[in-house]
Amino acid sequence: ILRSHTGLPAVCFVWQIAMVILFGVFIRYDEESDEKGWHEFKRSHNITSNIENDFYFRYPSFQDVHVMIFVGFGFLMTFLKRYSFGGVGFNFLIAAFGLQWALLMQGWFHSLDPVTGKITIGIESLINADFCCAGSLIAYGALLGKVSPVQLMIVTLFGVTLFAVEEYIILDLLHVSLDAGGSMVIHTFGGYYGLAISWVLYRPNLNLSKRLNGSVYHSDLFAMIGALFLWMFWPSFNSAITNHGAGQHRTVINTYLSLAACVLTTFAISSMGQKKGKLDMVHIQNASLAAGVAMGTSAEFMITPYGSIIVGFCCGIISTFGYLYVTPFLEKRLKLQDTCGIHNLHAVPGMLGGFVGAIVAAAATEEVYGKEGLVETFGLSGKFENRSMSTQGAYQAAGTCVAIAFGLVGGVCVGFILRFPLWGDPADDFCFDDEAYWELPEDEETIPPVLEYNNHMINKHQDT
Amino acid sequence: ILRSHTGLPAVCFVWQIAMVILFGVFIRYDEESDEKGWHEFKRSHNITSNIENDFYFRYPSFQDVHVMIFVGFGFLMTFLKRYSFGGVGFNFLIAAFGLQWALLMQGWFHSLDPVTGKITIGIESLINADFCCAGSLIAYGALLGKVSPVQLMIVTLFGVTLFAVEEYIILDLLHVSLDAGGSMVIHTFGGYYGLAISWVLYRPNLNLSKRLNGSVYHSDLFAMIGALFLWMFWPSFNSAITNHGAGQHRTVINTYLSLAACVLTTFAISSMGQKKGKLDMVHIQNASLAAGVAMGTSAEFMITPYGSIIVGFCCGIISTFGYLYVTPFLEKRLKLQDTCGIHNLHAVPGMLGGFVGAIVAAAATEEVYGKEGLVETFGLSGKFENRSMSTQGAYQAAGTCVAIAFGLVGGVCVGFILRFPLWGDPADDFCFDDEAYWELPEDEETIPPVLEYNNHMINKHQDT
Amino acid sequence: ILRSHTGLPAVCFVWQIAMVILFGVFIRYDEESDEKGWHEFKRSHNITSNIENDFYFRYPSFQDVHVMIFVGFGFLMTFLKRYSFGGVGFNFLIAAFGLQWALLMQGWFHSLDPVTGKITIGIESLINADFCCAGSLIAYGALLGKVSPVQLMIVTLFGVTLFAVEEYIILDLLHVSLDAGGSMVIHTFGGYYGLAISWVLYRPNLNLSKRLNGSVYHSDLFAMIGALFLWMFWPSFNSAITNHGAGQHRTVINTYLSLAACVLTTFAISSMGQKKGKLDMVHIQNASLAAGVAMGTSAEFMITPYGSIIVGFCCGIISTFGYLYVTPFLEKRLKLQDTCGIHNLHAVPGMLGGFVGAIVAAAATEEVYGKEGLVETFGLSGKFENRSMSTQGAYQAAGTCVAIAFGLVGGVCVGFILRFPLWGDPADDFCFDDEAYWELPEDEETIPPVLEYNNHMINKHQDT
Repeated sequence: ILRSHTGLPAVCFVWQIAMVILFGVFIRYDEESDEKGWHEFKRSHNITSNIENDFYFRYPSFQDVHVMIFVGFGFLMTFLKRYSFGGVGFNFLIAAFGLQWALLMQGWFHSLDPVTGKITIGIESLINADFCCAGSLIAYGALLGKVSPVQLMIVTLFGVTLFAVEEYIILDLLHVSLDAGGSMVIHTFGGYYGLAISWVLYRPNLNLSKRLNGSVYHSDLFAMIGALFLWMFWPSFNSAITNHGAGQHRTVINTYLSLAACVLTTFAISSMGQKKGKLDMVHIQNASLAAGVAMGTSAEFMITPYGSIIVGFCCGIISTFGYLYVTPFLEKRLKLQDTCGIHNLHAVPGMLGGFVGAIVAAAATEEVYGKEGLVETFGLSGKFENRSMSTQGAYQAAGTCVAIAFGLVGGVCVGFILRFPLWGDPADDFCFDDEAYWELPEDEETIPPVLEYNNHMINKHQDT
Repeated sequence: ILRSHTGLPAVCFVWQIAMVILFGVFIRYDEESDEKGWHEFKRSHNITSNIENDFYFRYPSFQDVHVMIFVGFGFLMTFLKRYSFGGVGFNFLIAAFGLQWALLMQGWFHSLDPVTGKITIGIESLINADFCCAGSLIAYGALLGKVSPVQLMIVTLFGVTLFAVEEYIILDLLHVSLDAGGSMVIHTFGGYYGLAISWVLYRPNLNLSKRLNGSVYHSDLFAMIGALFLWMFWPSFNSAITNHGAGQHRTVINTYLSLAACVLTTFAISSMGQKKGKLDMVHIQNASLAAGVAMGTSAEFMITPYGSIIVGFCCGIISTFGYLYVTPFLEKRLKLQDTCGIHNLHAVPGMLGGFVGAIVAAAATEEVYGKEGLVETFGLSGKFENRSMSTQGAYQAAGTCVAIAFGLVGGVCVGFILRFPLWGDPADDFCFDDEAYWELPEDEETIPPVLEYNNHMINKHQDT
Repeated sequence: ILRSHTGLPAVCFVWQIAMVILFGVFIRYDEESDEKGWHEFKRSHNITSNIENDFYFRYPSFQDVHVMIFVGFGFLMTFLKRYSFGGVGFNFLIAAFGLQWALLMQGWFHSLDPVTGKITIGIESLINADFCCAGSLIAYGALLGKVSPVQLMIVTLFGVTLFAVEEYIILDLLHVSLDAGGSMVIHTFGGYYGLAISWVLYRPNLNLSKRLNGSVYHSDLFAMIGALFLWMFWPSFNSAITNHGAGQHRTVINTYLSLAACVLTTFAISSMGQKKGKLDMVHIQNASLAAGVAMGTSAEFMITPYGSIIVGFCCGIISTFGYLYVTPFLEKRLKLQDTCGIHNLHAVPGMLGGFVGAIVAAAATEEVYGKEGLVETFGLSGKFENRSMSTQGAYQAAGTCVAIAFGLVGGVCVGFILRFPLWGDPADDFCFDDEAYWELPEDEETIPPVLEYNNHMINKHQDT
């Protein structure tokens, strides 16, 4: 039987070897990263400058997204007083695995060449792989402190798989052409996936670990690093794979404005929700990000600057209310323990964003976008040429429902897999504790006082 | 009457609603972010590639500036032992408000279309809005720990307004074409604005809070995160809105070199200023940045690499001396309490930078810049075609004086507004304390020892 | 005689003045950053758009590299419980000096114009200067906590000098055209350089400082900031100076994949190496980066995605084994004290990377690269036109040996210089202690309790 402390090495090794083999069989460079391919591409497309390589359109945004995944999500989850190693460390592990598996899964569904049987990858594939991981990292937020690293690897394996299928249905079959920042495919799916897993893994005696389920002063500051990098780079997240030119440009403006508005309403509701009007760091760290989630679908639309601000305004209110009232309600009534409150940061704002996108899509006109802009933005060419904008809006709404369904059903199934008594999860009185999985350094208090050194001065040689 | 704990929500809500309305009336996408507009722009300018969109020239720098505003300024102000939440949190709040208000104020003065009555925005507007916030964030540095969030919102409201007017006078009326990194308009103005406010708000009994007016080991490390991100990204700050091509390129080189030289002289003076030659973290965190401030005006000039190093060399010395001797002097003699020492980091280096810029502008020749380079760099076309370089230098110097005047007069006025007993500022013995405005987590010492858990091992299921 | 506390100011001042003079004599803008030069360059090269300026190809990568040098290396070295100021602070100092000296040294060897006697610099020079510093910062890793800042300045002065000579031999004389991420010139050299110095400076009584040679909970989190920024931005490090277009694009993909694989094997071995299968933060922070080091030479090659993953797979294993078994062995048997374990993170992976590069170069064919790709990637034009690929592989291997030799011999010589009793190094019982060189803030425990303030409420004015 798989012993708790040997499970992790085995999973890491075996799965990584599987990656080597699958990458060997399937993954190749695309024509813009292949040395020979790029020379041919330039010739055939009559391109004279290397700056036309997609790399230069996407790389700055890619690195911002990369920072969001590893530092943003990672440090946002360091807020617990004794689970900071697990927060940032396991985030690191599962994202590093998830992005490899995502390249394969997304490749099979989206870019498998039927002739050669190969998947070709470029910078946009790396961005999509990071996005795909985000779904599982969001789910980790609900589970933080209550699961083992092996369980997280399983959550990621299935999370990435479900993501790729769901994304294929939404983007390809329903032709929801616009979800560049993933309100639906990333946040709605990831949010409900995590909540469903957490619901299945409900621990009635979790209050045995209550003493560790909270922050200390400096752990909240570490979490603020994560929160700010997420907040600052969200315009890059939403614009990373949008259309070149005005598309990327506009997406950045919309997301930037929406996030700014969200901060003010978050501070307002946070202060109103506490006696004496004090602010709560949990709200500032989380609810101020909700606007980025909600703009994931519609930031590329011509939603107008004030439209973006209105979305941000509402999201700050809704998300902070969620932290104040809904999360406690879910825990008490629905037996749903959601450590980071992903319900308020991802599930609900993501769903809202999906429906906002549906409305804005249905309202799109040729007058606003121009003829070629409309076709380009919504991808309404080929067999979708005759789809009306109101039909497109209905498909966008349907896409949101697909994301919710995949999250809930997939999460329940994965939750039951995680309940097998094999995976080394912590006991109820040992949750939220790095002691379970990490060699911890000695306590800070044991640093001896420095007074006694004053007689040993700096340079030993000077005594001579 | 406005109660202290209800003031903040009211201000946030009302002002944010005002933003929605004003954005609805005034703000639209510019021709490079509008879907239809960009297609027309490409056609009319005969552009074939989307890479010519201004977005690709500016976005990497924009994100660096954004990091400086939120993580740079924010974490630099976490150095106090019990005001880190306020440092990074209120910085977040006022920057998020300030950038929205800045888009409006700067738009009215610089890009209001007289025909349509609309302001159009693009990536450069976002950079300028971030810059405009910086003025108020600098002022916050002088006030850190002594004012309430509502007071900070007022500081920002007026700060952004004054900034836009001052910028209009300096850049448009005086045609000081070169202040891309804002030595004058950002740092000189922001520095004197904050100092004047602080002078009006002088607290004779501030030593009642003396026990909290200092750092602890880890708070200094958090501040170092902010300091380093400011230091590293300052080349982006100064080059973000300079001319495409050689202009941006040269600005980066000059700022990079100047900052490097500044670090060495900062370490030197810091070590000389202390008994036993020990270094002081306050100097390292702050004075090493002074070169970036001072190069804000002249980094785009052909100041030469060694010219940049000389500026950095001097700034490190002047700024560190300021921290050692001037700040204590100001507090004792001028009744001026400057928590972060913005006098030494922003006011004086900014002013110096303005005058250095004046000298370098007066010395510019066609031999060095080339004919078209001279016209392009200094914008000497149209009605300024015949302005001589020495006249341009004089206008640059005049611009610096305008910035000082706006800072001092504006700051005194705003200071008196802040003295109304309405805004919930902390009592003298309650300054520098997050307890006043934040729900604080329990103390770190209350984490129970881990020894007792050794008998509860990891997986509860394994016991069965 | 040079007193310990006056040495640092003197060194900083004198060396910085030397920089001013040398920059004045030698350094000028290159044709893409010079105002007049760029206008002429555009004309002579028939370029119409400023986006063709090398700045736009390199600047995003440059800023990522810059973050790695100052935040990445700096914070990675904050892991010690009481040497975090020294870790991040001295890193800051020596990098700021090193990059100036590197511009001169690399300029003399690589871009001195024989006619004008000037070195011209642009964005690529700044990247190379940052790279050159990295060699000395790596060496600092072995010396962390045991040397004085003056000693570090000497290490950097000679480190940069040796680097430039070694780089000239490897890149120009041996024409090892491909070492863009510096497996050989940066990591192998820097690693062995630091190890050799540390070996000469062996302290038999270092266990007198043993109580401080370890981390605390929050110092490990600060180190994780550094580790993650290194990990995330390593694709930029390796691609920053590769060929425009497919070269940069492919380098990013290869490095990204290799690093992801490395994380999984690092977690696996770390867990296997400890009783109870617990993870060790030292491994996670360090060994997960080894793949980036090892890919420095071959990431630009057509090594294939799965080839990259295999390299990462092996590096995670080798590096973590190094931390578990080799570092203790070196200390015990070879009298080699390596504070950060650079042997496992830089020396060995760098050497491996050099040899992997040799093999991959020898295996390169025209079929894979295309005719022009082969010439462009390996720079096989001019007098190297007829060099066969297997010969090129042999030269790559020789380059690695040159790097090792320079590191070892140079390090031993510098080590003996550092043993002069002049430089203010700490006594054996005073190592790993910021107290030696920094004014430290009071201890955290001295913050008074907040309970007593409840009767002083927020706004003093409200009492009236």
